[in-house]
Amino acid sequence: MTSPLPTSIKVREVGPRDGFQNEPEVIPTGVKIDLINQLARTGLKRIEVTSFVRADVIPQLSDADAVLDGMSIPDGVSVSVLVPNLKGLERALERRDRFDEVNVFLSASEQHNRRNVNRSVEESIVGAASTLARAGDEGLRCEAVISTSFGCPYEGRVPVDRVVEIASRLAEAGAVEIGFGDTTGMANPKQVKDFFSVARQALPGIELTAHFHNTRGQGLANVLAALEVGVDSFESSFGELGGCPVPAGATGNIATEDLVSMVEEMGISTGVDLNLLLSAVETVAAQLGRPLGSHTLSAGPIDWQ
Amino acid sequence: MTSPLPTSIKVREVGPRDGFQNEPEVIPTGVKIDLINQLARTGLKRIEVTSFVRADVIPQLSDADAVLDGMSIPDGVSVSVLVPNLKGLERALERRDRFDEVNVFLSASEQHNRRNVNRSVEESIVGAASTLARAGDEGLRCEAVISTSFGCPYEGRVPVDRVVEIASRLAEAGAVEIGFGDTTGMANPKQVKDFFSVARQALPGIELTAHFHNTRGQGLANVLAALEVGVDSFESSFGELGGCPVPAGATGNIATEDLVSMVEEMGISTGVDLNLLLSAVETVAAQLGRPLGSHTLSAGPIDWQ
Repeated sequence: MTSPLPTSIKVREVGPRDGFQNEPEVIPTGVKIDLINQLARTGLKRIEVTSFVRADVIPQLSDADAVLDGMSIPDGVSVSVLVPNLKGLERALERRDRFDEVNVFLSASEQHNRRNVNRSVEESIVGAASTLARAGDEGLRCEAVISTSFGCPYEGRVPVDRVVEIASRLAEAGAVEIGFGDTTGMANPKQVKDFFSVARQALPGIELTAHFHNTRGQGLANVLAALEVGVDSFESSFGELGGCPVPAGATGNIATEDLVSMVEEMGISTGVDLNLLLSAVETVAAQLGRPLGSHTLSAGPIDWQ
Repeated sequence: MTSPLPTSIKVREVGPRDGFQNEPEVIPTGVKIDLINQLARTGLKRIEVTSFVRADVIPQLSDADAVLDGMSIPDGVSVSVLVPNLKGLERALERRDRFDEVNVFLSASEQHNRRNVNRSVEESIVGAASTLARAGDEGLRCEAVISTSFGCPYEGRVPVDRVVEIASRLAEAGAVEIGFGDTTGMANPKQVKDFFSVARQALPGIELTAHFHNTRGQGLANVLAALEVGVDSFESSFGELGGCPVPAGATGNIATEDLVSMVEEMGISTGVDLNLLLSAVETVAAQLGRPLGSHTLSAGPIDWQ
């Protein structure tokens, strides 16, 4: 069940979308653009910058066009946008030259999906498939993220086979990468190993991405477990921002800087300059004016002298 | 390098000593006693309750006698006290019938040891040896904790061979358990596996205990790594309290409730009732009047329905 550890991993920074979407206040567009420009110069190769959702539903991301127009991204950094449906994709396509990838999403569990997007999982799969097809026609690389892959706060256990079945259908529809979200931090390391061992078998040729939350402090332990079964693609958010507001009081995504610190210390390359990343996170912390959940920001990087 | 995971682990709760020692305010003795009594009824089998240090140096623990006299501990729970030297042990021995174990401590690195206790490591080893001998004469079980076992904030890397050499001398002097402290959160999971693989070989018959901090968010990942090389004894603190005030801004020990949540979810037994433990931590949080670093306290235990 254990593979040799990967020598490098891919990290997608989701903070500009996932983090800012979940902030109570709307972050000014200029601040977002400055931050994205900074992040894109830390060595991060993948950044999810915004989402084309309805402005009345998520005002925090109503400036998607302006963010895409304003940012300045070096070559080699892949920019992704989240789209909830075909309509969102059509809006995004008006800025086709400003991004490289689209992410679609749904939940593996009925109740979470219904509360999130007011559809059944089956309806969401069908919708995602048409969005993926249209994005593929435009030559966009596509990731599909499956929330509640490791458990649902409303339904409890979610069968691995069900998650893998959904993933297979999304892969058939054109997703070359599937992100598995531990949306409310219910995963444990043993479960993570079992899960990815099954998923790896069932989804040959598909990039499998782990998206863990640090809800119960286990985020990096789950990263380690995933690494040990060969997962080499992760999503995280600067400052431990973002994530799911359920349960109340829960912290968010694993912090990118904590992820980078841990795996680089293990000799696994991320391409990210931790000090540059921490500077970017400091900018965000100053903007938000509150302590962030990030451990490495609080303690500073390890100094081996 | 990987063993089957242990089916159960031993957890020593160090919060009443390590946690309260590091609080800026002195916690009232009655509050400590109530908390210890609560903790002792959660299923925890090992609790470090106080330390016999100089009251002028650490006023937070000047009530060691009163704590020992006042607490009421069920059968089967092993109570330990930390003693810095022979003098501290002699003071503790006046309450010989109130505890079961003593812990001695030193640092593996010269500079950390000197700043902490104003002695060379060699002087501390010799001092610890005489303390261990005297405690052994009294029939007390002895643990020796080696701080900075995984790195020193002042000196950087600490050779594994040096830590193991110190551990061997402490074991020869009578310690039946050696705790290895990642005092400022510099350990990473790969290092932890390598470390305990070496230590296990070098210290047959000795109980090896991992004492991790969550300074850079890696605490539970290091626990997982330790479990995977067969370590089954851990120290932790309720509420993520305690730990080292270096570096500034650093969080403390791994939270007992986060540790228990993770390993129990993995099917590894701790004997601890997580809900009872969380009630105890809530008492502490109310007393301290500030948010604690504990993730499971914030998010609540996982509800699998």
